[in-house]
Parts: sequence; C-alpha cells; structure tokens
Amino acid sequence: MSTPTGQPLARYAAARRVGDHLYLSGVIAVDPASGEVPQRYDALDPAAREALRGIGYDTGQLSVDVFEGPAVVQSWLVLARIRALVAEHGGEMANVCRLVQYFTDLRDYPAYNRVRNLFFPEPVVSTVVEVSGMMPGPAVRLEVEATVWLPPGR
Amino acid sequence: MSTPTGQPLARYAAARRVGDHLYLSGVIAVDPASGEVPQRYDALDPAAREALRGIGYDTGQLSVDVFEGPAVVQSWLVLARIRALVAEHGGEMANVCRLVQYFTDLRDYPAYNRVRNLFFPEPVVSTVVEVSGMMPGPAVRLEVEATVWLPPGR
Amino acid sequence: MSTPTGQPLARYAAARRVGDHLYLSGVIAVDPASGEVPQRYDALDPAAREALRGIGYDTGQLSVDVFEGPAVVQSWLVLARIRALVAEHGGEMANVCRLVQYFTDLRDYPAYNRVRNLFFPEPVVSTVVEVSGMMPGPAVRLEVEATVWLPPGR
Amino acid sequence: MSTPTGQPLARYAAARRVGDHLYLSGVIAVDPASGEVPQRYDALDPAAREALRGIGYDTGQLSVDVFEGPAVVQSWLVLARIRALVAEHGGEMANVCRLVQYFTDLRDYPAYNRVRNLFFPEPVVSTVVEVSGMMPGPAVRLEVEATVWLPPGR
Amino acid sequence: MSTPTGQPLARYAAARRVGDHLYLSGVIAVDPASGEVPQRYDALDPAAREALRGIGYDTGQLSVDVFEGPAVVQSWLVLARIRALVAEHGGEMANVCRLVQYFTDLRDYPAYNRVRNLFFPEPVVSTVVEVSGMMPGPAVRLEVEATVWLPPGR
Amino acid sequence: MSTPTGQPLARYAAARRVGDHLYLSGVIAVDPASGEVPQRYDALDPAAREALRGIGYDTGQLSVDVFEGPAVVQSWLVLARIRALVAEHGGEMANVCRLVQYFTDLRDYPAYNRVRNLFFPEPVVSTVVEVSGMMPGPAVRLEVEATVWLPPGR
Amino acid sequence: MSTPTGQPLARYAAARRVGDHLYLSGVIAVDPASGEVPQRYDALDPAAREALRGIGYDTGQLSVDVFEGPAVVQSWLVLARIRALVAEHGGEMANVCRLVQYFTDLRDYPAYNRVRNLFFPEPVVSTVVEVSGMMPGPAVRLEVEATVWLPPGR
Amino acid sequence: MSTPTGQPLARYAAARRVGDHLYLSGVIAVDPASGEVPQRYDALDPAAREALRGIGYDTGQLSVDVFEGPAVVQSWLVLARIRALVAEHGGEMANVCRLVQYFTDLRDYPAYNRVRNLFFPEPVVSTVVEVSGMMPGPAVRLEVEATVWLPPGR
Amino acid sequence: MSTPTGQPLARYAAARRVGDHLYLSGVIAVDPASGEVPQRYDALDPAAREALRGIGYDTGQLSVDVFEGPAVVQSWLVLARIRALVAEHGGEMANVCRLVQYFTDLRDYPAYNRVRNLFFPEPVVSTVVEVSGMMPGPAVRLEVEATVWLPPGR
Amino acid sequence: MSTPTGQPLARYAAARRVGDHLYLSGVIAVDPASGEVPQRYDALDPAAREALRGIGYDTGQLSVDVFEGPAVVQSWLVLARIRALVAEHGGEMANVCRLVQYFTDLRDYPAYNRVRNLFFPEPVVSTVVEVSGMMPGPAVRLEVEATVWLPPGR
Amino acid sequence: MSTPTGQPLARYAAARRVGDHLYLSGVIAVDPASGEVPQRYDALDPAAREALRGIGYDTGQLSVDVFEGPAVVQSWLVLARIRALVAEHGGEMANVCRLVQYFTDLRDYPAYNRVRNLFFPEPVVSTVVEVSGMMPGPAVRLEVEATVWLPPGR
Amino acid sequence: MSTPTGQPLARYAAARRVGDHLYLSGVIAVDPASGEVPQRYDALDPAAREALRGIGYDTGQLSVDVFEGPAVVQSWLVLARIRALVAEHGGEMANVCRLVQYFTDLRDYPAYNRVRNLFFPEPVVSTVVEVSGMMPGPAVRLEVEATVWLPPGR
Repeated sequence: MSTPTGQPLARYAAARRVGDHLYLSGVIAVDPASGEVPQRYDALDPAAREALRGIGYDTGQLSVDVFEGPAVVQSWLVLARIRALVAEHGGEMANVCRLVQYFTDLRDYPAYNRVRNLFFPEPVVSTVVEVSGMMPGPAVRLEVEATVWLPPGR
Repeated sequence: MSTPTGQPLARYAAARRVGDHLYLSGVIAVDPASGEVPQRYDALDPAAREALRGIGYDTGQLSVDVFEGPAVVQSWLVLARIRALVAEHGGEMANVCRLVQYFTDLRDYPAYNRVRNLFFPEPVVSTVVEVSGMMPGPAVRLEVEATVWLPPGR
Repeated sequence: MSTPTGQPLARYAAARRVGDHLYLSGVIAVDPASGEVPQRYDALDPAAREALRGIGYDTGQLSVDVFEGPAVVQSWLVLARIRALVAEHGGEMANVCRLVQYFTDLRDYPAYNRVRNLFFPEPVVSTVVEVSGMMPGPAVRLEVEATVWLPPGR
Repeated sequence: MSTPTGQPLARYAAARRVGDHLYLSGVIAVDPASGEVPQRYDALDPAAREALRGIGYDTGQLSVDVFEGPAVVQSWLVLARIRALVAEHGGEMANVCRLVQYFTDLRDYPAYNRVRNLFFPEPVVSTVVEVSGMMPGPAVRLEVEATVWLPPGR
Repeated sequence: MSTPTGQPLARYAAARRVGDHLYLSGVIAVDPASGEVPQRYDALDPAAREALRGIGYDTGQLSVDVFEGPAVVQSWLVLARIRALVAEHGGEMANVCRLVQYFTDLRDYPAYNRVRNLFFPEPVVSTVVEVSGMMPGPAVRLEVEATVWLPPGR
Repeated sequence: MSTPTGQPLARYAAARRVGDHLYLSGVIAVDPASGEVPQRYDALDPAAREALRGIGYDTGQLSVDVFEGPAVVQSWLVLARIRALVAEHGGEMANVCRLVQYFTDLRDYPAYNRVRNLFFPEPVVSTVVEVSGMMPGPAVRLEVEATVWLPPGR
Repeated sequence: MSTPTGQPLARYAAARRVGDHLYLSGVIAVDPASGEVPQRYDALDPAAREALRGIGYDTGQLSVDVFEGPAVVQSWLVLARIRALVAEHGGEMANVCRLVQYFTDLRDYPAYNRVRNLFFPEPVVSTVVEVSGMMPGPAVRLEVEATVWLPPGR
Repeated sequence: MSTPTGQPLARYAAARRVGDHLYLSGVIAVDPASGEVPQRYDALDPAAREALRGIGYDTGQLSVDVFEGPAVVQSWLVLARIRALVAEHGGEMANVCRLVQYFTDLRDYPAYNRVRNLFFPEPVVSTVVEVSGMMPGPAVRLEVEATVWLPPGR
Repeated sequence: MSTPTGQPLARYAAARRVGDHLYLSGVIAVDPASGEVPQRYDALDPAAREALRGIGYDTGQLSVDVFEGPAVVQSWLVLARIRALVAEHGGEMANVCRLVQYFTDLRDYPAYNRVRNLFFPEPVVSTVVEVSGMMPGPAVRLEVEATVWLPPGR
Repeated sequence: MSTPTGQPLARYAAARRVGDHLYLSGVIAVDPASGEVPQRYDALDPAAREALRGIGYDTGQLSVDVFEGPAVVQSWLVLARIRALVAEHGGEMANVCRLVQYFTDLRDYPAYNRVRNLFFPEPVVSTVVEVSGMMPGPAVRLEVEATVWLPPGR
Repeated sequence: MSTPTGQPLARYAAARRVGDHLYLSGVIAVDPASGEVPQRYDALDPAAREALRGIGYDTGQLSVDVFEGPAVVQSWLVLARIRALVAEHGGEMANVCRLVQYFTDLRDYPAYNRVRNLFFPEPVVSTVVEVSGMMPGPAVRLEVEATVWLPPGR
Repeated sequence: MSTPTGQPLARYAAARRVGDHLYLSGVIAVDPASGEVPQRYDALDPAAREALRGIGYDTGQLSVDVFEGPAVVQSWLVLARIRALVAEHGGEMANVCRLVQYFTDLRDYPAYNRVRNLFFPEPVVSTVVEVSGMMPGPAVRLEVEATVWLPPGR
C-alpha cells in the first residue's frame, strides 16, 4: 500500500522499475502520520476541489457531501498519488497499462469513475472487484494497483 | 471489465498491448445492452452447448441446470471472450501467462475448472479468490483477468 | 494456487517464465495429499521454528499459539514456497517485483508482516486486500501471488 | 400511494382538497399495470433524460447507471407525478408547503436532491427518514408525501 | 400515540382542533392499563367480530387465526379509535383528509386494507411505510396517524 | 432537516408559513459546519445543563452519561431549535399542533419524553415511530417534525 | 417434484401405483419450460380466478395482490395438479389419505388453507412444516406431497 | 396437525383408516382452545410426571427444568396423543410402522428419545429432521407424523 | 436414521415390513462407531469410486473434490445402504415406490441426482426439500427416506 | 443464583460464611415458583416504588415505564435481596467489599446505578461487564455477585 | 485457565494459597499437549463413565451422546481437576466456598448441574453466566473458577 | 471500574482493604475526562513504549500498529493502574492472588499475555473469558479485576 504523501504504511516499496515495467504497490488514501483516512473535501487542495466541482461534487451541502465525499475524496487522492509516482519515473498516466481497483462497496464506483475520467486521457485497462476489507481499516473505500509500461527513452 | 460482445460496460479499454505483453481488463459475462447477466444455457450457441454436454452439463433437467447453469454459462462466455480478445491480437490461449479469477462463491469452482479445461490445452498459472461482489451486480458469478505474453513475431 | 510441496491442487501450473518475467500462481499453505491446511507450529521444520522464535512467535504456550499459529505458520510456508519456486528458475527473493497478498482476516497482517521481513532483504512492492474466501476452504488465512523479474543472465 | 400514471395501487385517493389545503397520498414510482418498479433510464421520456444528463446522470455506461439509475429514475417519476397532481388542482410546485420523503437507503439522497432541484424553484420544507420498506416491494427506493397550500383564487 | 380506550400512553394529547383542522396523534392498539397489545379476536366486541367474519376473518381455526389475527384485530381497534375521536369533535370518517400508516411488516397490509374498507365510505388519501418499531414494543403491528378536516358548522 | 444553528444541511427551507399554518422541516441535532452530531453535555449551554440536571441527567459520571447523553442532548437541541423557529414567526410552543417524532432506537424515548416536558406546557399531539436511519448518519438519534398553528393576530 | 403441466423437473416419476396405493411426488408450482415460478393471478385460468375471487382473493389491487398472490396462485396450481394426477389414475380428491405440506413461510398457511377447502370435500389428514428451501429456488412458497388410497375397482 | 385434546387446529382430519393402514396427521402439543403451547411440567397429569421423574426429568429445580421442560413436556403430549389415536382405531404402539419427527432444534432429540422409549416397547422405524418452523408458532419444539399398520382383525 | 453399516445411531429400527410395504427409516451417511460423517472419496470402495469417475466425479484434484466430495460420497453411501436394506427383504431398487429426500443445501441436488441415476433403473417418485439440520450434526448433507412395495412372492 | 424470595433456583447455597468472609451466589430477580422474571413496577412493594419515584422512575406512563421498568425493577429486587442476605448474617451494606455486576445490555447501567445509590451509603468496589445470557432466560437483565467482609464481632 | 492434566495453557499459576484462602484459576477441559477439547465419553476413565451412566448419560447411542457428550464430559473433567487441586492443598470439595461458572451456551446447564451433584456433598455458592467465548476456542463449553476456604489445621 | 488516572467513571471505589485482602474494582483503560479509550502508542509514556518495543510492539509501521495497538496499549495502562493501586496500599504485584480478565475479543490475548509478563515476576492465578461488552463502550478491549493479599506488616 502506498499513501498520498508517500510515507510508507509498512515496510514495503511504493514502486519498482524492472525493465520496461514499473510496478506500483496498491495505493490507498491514508495519512500515514495520523492513521486517518480522509472523508471530507477539505482534505483536498483548492485545485482538486475546483476540478471536482466541475463534475458536480463538493456541493457544500452536508447532506449530499456526507454520502459522496468519502469515495470522491479518496478517489482523487489515490489517483493523484499514482500520477505522482509515475511522474517520478518519467512517465505519465497514458503509460498506465492496467489498473486493478478494489472497493469495499461497489456503489462507490460511479463517483470513482467520474474522478478517474479527470486523470486519464484515454480509456484504461481495468479490473474492478468488491472485497471485504483493506488496511488500515473500514474507513478505506478503495485501493488501486497500477501496472505501468515505461518503454526505453522514458 | 470486458463483456462477451465486446461492448464496454464503462469507459475503459478491453485490452492493451505494450511491448510483448497484452493486458486484458477483467472479463465478466454481462450483456452490455440489457444489463442482463446470463444464467441459462440458452444464452449459448449450439457448439458451446454441445461441448458442455460432453462434460456432463446442460442436462435439460431444470432442477439440475438451475443450480449449475449460472456458473457454467458464465464460465464459458468469459473464457470465450478472452480467447477472442487474444485472437484479435494474434495470440492464442497458450499465450495466456496468468489468470486471476474472482468468484462470488467458491463452490462454483468445480464447474469453472471443467469448462476451463476445454479452453486451455496446457495448465495455466492461476490465482483464485472469493470476493464479496462484482459489477454490475450480484448475478455475476466470476470475473477473470488475463495477462498474455505475445512475443515478437505474433 | 500452488502449495508448499509443489503438488498441484488442480490442473494449473505453479509458474511460467515468459521473456524476463516469471509469473507465479497464487500460493496457499495446503497439504495437497490430505487437503489439510496447517495451523500449528509442528508443521514447520526446526530451522523455521527457530527463526520464528527469534521474532517472538512459537511460544509453546497453547493459549498464545492457538491464536497466532495459523497465520504465522501459513505465512512461513507460503513465502518459503515462493522462494523455492523462484530459486527453481534461477532467481532469488530480490527478483520479486510485486506481491499481491489476500487475507481472510486483516488482523493476521502484523504476523505476516514480521514473517515477510525474514524473507525479503529489501522492501517489496505490495498490495494487500481482505477477501471473503480462498480454496480449498475457510482454514486458509492468506494467499500470495508473486510477479518476478528475471533479467537475462538469470 | 399514488403512481406515475395515476392508476391506483389500492383503494385510496391520490389527492384531496379541503379548504386551502391539498393533501396528497405518498407517491411511489410503480407501474400499476405490471407491478414493475422502474430501475432504468429508458423508463423515462426523452425530455426527462435530457434534463438528467444536464446534471450528469444517464451516462450510458452500464456500470455507472446500474448503481445510480434506480434512485434517479424513481426520483424523477415521483416528483413529476406530484407536479401533475398539483397542476390538476390549479397549483404549481411553489405551492408545495411540505415534503416528507422516505428512503429505503439514505445513500440515494444525493441523487434525489439533485433531481428535486430541477422541480422546485425555491427551497422547500422537507423531512427525510430512512424506513425499512415500502409497497409494493423492495425495488422501491423512495416515497414522497406532499402537503400543498392552494389559497383562494387558485 | 393514542389508544383504544383513550387512556394515554404518555403525556401527550390524543387530538387537537385548530381552525378547520383536527390533528390526531398516531393511534396504536395497546391496552394502557396492562400494556398488552391485543393479538386475538376475543379482544373485540361481537359486532366487530361479525363484521370481520363477513370479510372472511375470525375463522375460528387456530392455525389460520394465529397468523392473521394480530393485524386484523389491531387494524379494527385503531380505526375504531380514530372514528371515535373524530366523532367526539363532531366529524365522521369522511372528514379524514389524510392517513399516514406505519407497519412493522408490510405483509399485514392486505388485512388492514380489507378492514379499512369497512370504515371508510370513500377512498382516502393514504401514505404507507414499513418502519422498524413502534411503542410500546414489537407486538404492535401498525400505527395510524389521521389528519381531519372539520369545516365550520361541524 | 433543520439544525440547531439554523444553517441548512441541504437546499431546503427550515419553515414556511402558509395561511394560519407554519410548517417546519424535520429538525435534527447536527452542527452543519463540522457535520458533527452532538453526543455529550458540553455541547449545551449552562442553562440547558442546569435544566437537565433538575430532571436527573448530566450526572457528571462518565459511565452514566455515555449512555444517556446522546439522546438527552439531541432532544434538547432539537426542541430548542423548534422553539426558536416558532418564535421567529411570532408563536410559542403552545402553538405546535402536532409533532411527528422519529427515533433510531425507541429506548431513547423515556429521555426524550422527560426533556419534552420541559418545553411544552401542555400535552401535545404526538406520533412516534422507530426508523432505520436519518441524515446525515447513524449518530443521529431522533428527528422531530412540527406542524404549527398560528392564528391571525400572531 | 411434479409440476402443473406434468413436464418433469428432473428424472423422476410424478406418480406410481402399487397395490391399493398411489404415491405422488411432491408437487410444486413451476413452469418446467421457463423455470419460472408463478407469482401473479394472470398465471391462472378464468375459472380458477373466479373461484379465488369468491373467497376474497385476486382483488385487482396491486398493493394487496402483490403480498397474497404468490401463495394463493401456487396453492391453486399445486392442488389442481394433484387432482389431475389422481384423476389420471381413476381417483378423486376424497381418495387422498394424507398430505404432507412444506412451506417456506408459514404465514402463507391461511391463504393455502382457504384454497385447499375449495379442493377437498372433507377434512384431510395433514402434516405442515416450514422448511428452509425447495427446488428450483426461493420463489417457491409451498410443496405438497400426497398419498392416495385407490381401492380395487378404481 | 392434531393436538393433545383432539380439538382440531384447522379443518383437517386427525386420522384416516384406509385398508390396513391408519394415516395420522402430524401431531403437535398445542392447546387448541387457548393457542398455548405447553412449556412446563404442570401441563402434565401426575402419572406422566412420575414416569418422567423416573428417567431424571421434572427435577423441580427451575434452572434445570426451564431448559429441558419444553421438549420433554411436548414429547410426552405428542406421543400420548398418538397412542390415543391409535387406540381409538383398535391398535397399539407396536402397530406404528413409521414415525417422521420434525424438530425446531435437534438438541431436543436426547430428551425426546428418552421419552419415546417409554411409549414404544420395540425400536421403531424413524426419520428425524430439523425444520425452520411449525404451526402455530415458534414455541412448538417438535411434530410427529405416524404411519400405522392395522392388519385385519384389528 | 439408518447408517451405511447398519449399526444403529439410536434405539430405532432400520426397516419394518408390514403387509406388502417395507418402511425404511431415514438413512444418513454416518459411521456409527466414530460418529464421523464421510466427506472424501477415500471413504468409498474402489467399485463405487470407479462408478463415480464414470460420471465425472472423484477427479483427484483437491480444489474440485473438496467442494463436490461431501455430497457425492454421502449420496452414494445413503443409496447403497437403501439398496442393501431392500435386498435384505428380498426386493430391489425398482420396488422403491417413494423417496423423500432432505438436503441441508439444495445446491447439492445436481450431484445427488447424477448418483441416484446410477442406482435406479427407472424414474422414481420423489420429494425434495431443504431442511435446517439433520442428526448427528452439520456435516450431514442429505437424508433419504424410502417407502418400498414388496408384493406377495417377494 | 439466588432469588428475591430466597427460594433456590437449583441445588446451590445462597450464601456461605467462612472466616471473616461471607460469599454470596450471584443474585437475579426471578420468582422461583412461577419462573417469571419481573418486568413491571407492580412487582415491588409500595415503599420501593416510592423510593424509585423519588429518583424519577415509576412514572405511570406506559411508554416510559415499558423501556425503563425491567432494569429498574430487577435492580431493586436484586439489591434488596443482597441486603437481606447480608442482614441474615449480621451485616449491612457497608460490609460489602466487592460487587461483580453482569448485564445483558449495558444500556441498563444508568438505571441500575441510580438504584444502587439508594442501597449503598458509600462507593463500593465494582466490576461491570456485559454477558450474552443468564439463567433462567433472556428476560433477566442483570445478575449481581457480592463478596462481603464480616469482621469478628459481627 | 487450568487443565485436567495440570499442564499449563499459558504462563500462569493453577492455584495459590494465601492465608486461609486457596484461589484457583478458571479451569477448562483442554488437553494442553494437543490443544484438543474433549467432546466424547471415551475421553473419560471407566469410573467416571460409570458414574455418568448412573445419572443417565453416556448412553452409547450416537444421536443422543453427540448432543449431550461435550457438556457432560467437560463438566466432569473440570470438576475433577478442581477436586484434585483442592486435594493437593489438603482440602476437599466441602472447602469450596464459591464457584463462578461460565458457559458458552446455557442450555448446557442441566447436564452440568447433574454432574456437579456428583462432586459436591452440599449445595455450593454459585454464580452462572453465559459468555461469548473462552480460550483456546469455541469447542470449550464451560469454565469454572473456584474460591476455596482452607482454615488452619488443613 | 477504575481508570488509569484514578478519576472515577462512576460512583464507586477503586479499591477497598478488608482484613488481609485488598479488593480492586475492574480496571479499564479509559480517560475519565474525555471519555476516550486509548488506541495508539502515543497514549503511553516513553518508558512504557520502550518496554513494549523490547517485546516487538510499537513498530512505527501504521499497518502493523493499527491492529495491535489498541490491545497492547490498553493492556499496559490497565496493568500499570493495578500496580499503582496495589502500591498505594503498600503492596506489589507479587501480592496479587487472582486476576479475572475480560476481553471483547480473545484474539487480543497473546498481546495481553506478553505485556502481563512485563508486570508479573511470577505466574499468577488467572481466569480469562470473552464477554460481549464493557463500559463505557465498544472501544474497550479488556477489563482486569484483581484480588490482592496483603498480609499483616504490609
């Protein structure tokens, strides 16, 4: 598992490049310092919030945001972390050749799907399943594992 | 997720070739037009049914088929779709170098296993887990994600 | 699924080398002859037990070992089997470029994590999820799927 | 309970005007002829679908619509039925002085809230609770009971 | 909550007339002295039982009455109490302009519906939902809240 | 839903006056800024706490207050908010002509009942049911919907 | 299991005459061609519906019929099938010397009991239990096994 | 279902003799007048209690009898009723050629087994299953259906 | 209950012949000495295993056999025991005039059905229900009660 | 377990004095003659009820008392029984040196705590846990085990 | 926890004598070598079995013993172990001044009670509660903690 | 219940000395001011953390500590509080003559056991059970009740 700030949750590597492949650990949205899993829009920076408002989220109405916020916020943080990891190795989102996406509740998929469209210029190879839990606990709504192709010259 | 007819369930790619690898999205047996997940043998073409009868399924007895049909039918459709996707890229089932297979009930494994033997000439590298759900809903019994090796010349 | 002794659970391949990659099937700790899933420390050889005692497990106190034993024992057997498979192809644990780790109860993670540190000299790319079941049944606590990079010369 | 087409589900009255008040029965989205409860966007007319697309629903992607469709479609049908009943008595949505809204799953509230904004020019007095069931069965996601003020001259 | 005998369950008012409206508390069938909730036909007077036999209930067969009795008996007592309260204020059942009906199990609706037809000469504005509990406990099958229109001259 | 501070949870109106009626939205005790639902006595002002101590609550003993606090505190906040809303329109609690009270656990009723006696000089028309949920989440213990009669001259 | 049309669900015999006894398989109401289990009154012929209306069922009101229909319709179909099987062997309902009746929910018994009175001129020896399931699936509400006495001359 | 006093629970026959067979309805221990299902030893006559004390039951200690009483008492009443019915037709317990015994909890079997030994001089043909319910409700612990052979001359 | 070896589980008779009928107790597959319920193919003799392999069972693959084995093995043992009991009284399987078959999970029916075809030359009168338990415990998957017709001369 | 009247529930001793200690069995509020567990205030004598009214219980309002009554009544009876047992041995409540208190629902603690204050002049050493059951059944809300110090001279 | 053979389950003391008291750890019936918890009568020596047969247990009928055996056997082993520990310190069962008895299912109490009568000449001070688990696992049915009074001279 | 800081949770005494015994209330790890139950290592002082690191806990890896932390931290706080209470009365841990230890999940026992070894120089008399809850709520993992022997001169 990798986290938004890059601080590890445990003794593991966030990514490893071998040959033309870059393998990433599954990424979840957890603050490794506090152990908190973000649930609200104020965990995001202004640019992220503006992007999300452009697709109808972050409404400012508590009764709406309380239901949609956790999945939307975590989707953004996870995908932004993947983008940063790929960029560290000289790649971009178009180099992602497969995503395996784990949810604790598939009803979160529509929100994730809209957020993912903001990150990927092209459709991406994708597997989606609902699992019974992820670390570090039940507040986590999704985990995304990316496989990246970084051909020579990258 | 990819589907038997190749029509996408969402904005994602059914497959992507990078270098010598062909990555496939997880495949499920859903009719993307109707959203229906096949449960009965009449969702298959005659050749498929004949093959399944050869291994003891599609008995024509309702009380038997109602229990076995959903897993057998979906197993066939999913594996046939993978075969078609691999063929589109010039490969064959022997090029599949790993399958990750998700079930919503592992009691469906024996049926899947017998069907898989019809598709693969040789034993295949395989991971099997039971998850709590798949898209688009609880009628789905299995999802299969294939990784394919297509060496140069293919 | 692959097993500690290498005897298959079903018709599948424990590993396959394609190009610079070695793909392994998900490994579980089951005795394929008896169908038993080890739960106690006496399923391990003395060297393994000594290593585990070095990190505080295998205490000899029933009320402690009965809770910790199943996860610790299976963690050791699964990782030892992966090490053996990699070695068969001329590699070592440092060649493992990704692990996908499935648990039936994430509370087993701390024990697994301590055992994994005994096998891997360096942090490894890692995905962890909790699923609802694995074959052949509920006594199985974890399954590990490894992807290995074996560059030319290996 | 009243229904979209106005055909009664049972022996009851859809609405009753007494003095300056118009009382409506709770409205659900059920087709009284077939007993079917709409779950998909094709149950709506083109104008409704266009309005819903304007707020991001009815995406045409099965994996998104299958989760959001039931609540969005039923929200539209229920509110359109209320609007029609009020209009039959010479009123408009601004005359609705209270809504009591029952859901079987409050996670449907964000979708309902966005649809309601399309029907009401001004904020409306509102009560929302989650109940354990509505007639005629579990496919029903929401029921709305309106109290209307129709002052003299209306 | 009001009760058949009019003795209060708690410190609340059974009804209140304001302007042309008569508001009634939700009525349940509980004996406030004993706290018992009637379940059998012998809780009713002979005229009530004769009326119920006319629509096929109160069969005298234990295996039938044990399932139907609680809902039928409580339906009668609740509606008779509402009729009495309305009459105390000079009205009749035709003055009831809305009923909100809460059930703990909607399978009781058919019985309630047949009983209600005995009390209301005309269809009535009606809302029905299933809730998870009512006071004073789980033996209660339904609660009915009536809103009444009593125009001047009544 | 309305809240103690009057800041809306969503796009809806806290109250609407039509003719001689004042309709209030269902009121819950949630802090719209933080989304927190008060559970402890320190969420109340000193006068409220003194009143509650007068009827035996707010004992200062953690093991007592932890069980009683949530229902007592929310009861006070909800009823105080209703009183404020009625006062804004020139009325007082005696003008409330019906309360519909939703609980997530009816065992909270005794506490609510004692608090309500502090707010209402006379018995009030009352409906009580237990529902399976309220917004914005499971910390909410009760919701109260008031209907008010404000005759001319008010 | 035998079915209304007499087409078998599996390889079994609907009935067998030995000596003076006629043994019948358990009968359920399933359409063996489609696998559908009838739930609505339109699955019956007009004479059956008229008979059922005579005892208060088949009301034409969706909210009533949706709850009562499945048990009433299946009761009719099952008993009519038994009558036909007995008649094929020269007997009539008075020859039935024992019924074992399985239900998935005993609350269906009152409806079944009223329908059975239409088929049997005299009280019949009867055993009733609630079981956890019947073939081919959960839509089945009851199964009836008849033992028949056909003395010589029949 | 037949009952200890012979008064029917519904419109059915307690027994029917055809040829050399006597078929009995399933017998349960319910008082058809009150609908009560006996749970305590004082529901039995002194001779029965003495017999039960002889095999260690009816201890007079509440904490023992409260657990064992319901099954023991009902076992006695059911078997005594069967004996009476058989006797009415000129037979005795040795004529019973098969018992089908339904329990709601198989842990009641040991008690039933000891009681049955008091009634049957010889081992009897026996089928035992645990079902999910019996009429008239959950207080019933067992139901016994007897088939009796009454050869000519009886 | 009767068992494969004929040793009784309790004080009851495995079979009783009265007139032309042979009544059998319900048969389950339990080893009365050890109390163990067979789950694996090695509980069968070689001839049985060969017969089962002929219909596709007993595959030798743990992951297949672990799911199918319990129901297949118990089906064989139960039916073989019935055949032996009938033979002891001079009959054969064609004399069985009714089977009542209890399962703890109806998903075992397909396997049972295929095994039964090996024992019965002709279709047999059959009742199938799913119950919640059988003796001596949850490892038991099915129980079969046979009624046999042994006309004079047998 | 000891009971309010001192009549034993089983063969055990209510108390035993050894040296300076008096050990009491766990006390529950059950009437050993009837096996009934008191739930209502009328099970108490007038002095007890007056004392309870002084701390706000025994309100006379059914909807309040039905929730609070069982725990309050049983608390009183249990503690009064302990006081009587201690007095029989010449002690008083100040001699109680430890209470272990078992509840079936910890939400009953506040009521118990208020009642206990009426019995103990000084704070008492106390352990509280929630268990899953007590004898003789689920109506029991609490059990209290007291250890008493009776120094010489008592 | 102490065990029948006296071998510890963990690092704790089976008993400690301080002054006139002997405190025992809670005793459970587990074989510390194998970790097995006895469930069958053959875990007992012949004298124990004879004593149990004298009170009606150890019947030799599998269907009876399978239900009663675990609680009876463990009751014997636990109490025998307590007797041995007390004897080691020079006492006898009459010195036990309190037993706290934990069960995982209170339905085991009658069996335990009968066994306890074999060990204690006089009624004993006793507390009984049902808890949700004991070490080392769910096969454990009871745990007994004894407090013993060993006055000077012992 | 006693707490780490000694501030009471309710009106009770943390300890009482009578004769040579010191009785302690059950101790839980709750901060009486905030009502918070510690879950993380930063709730401990540096010396405690160093001691725990010496036995392998407090790893600094979130994914490990999040599972182990709550039980380890609470074990330390509870035992430290007991040591302080005993010291206040002039004793030391060797004077503790019995511990009764309640857990909400017995899987926490291994961690507790390792921590306890840090506090007790010698094995201690010990009872362990799993209960369904403790005050003030579900975050509490364990409660420990100590009985202490303080002979004269202490």
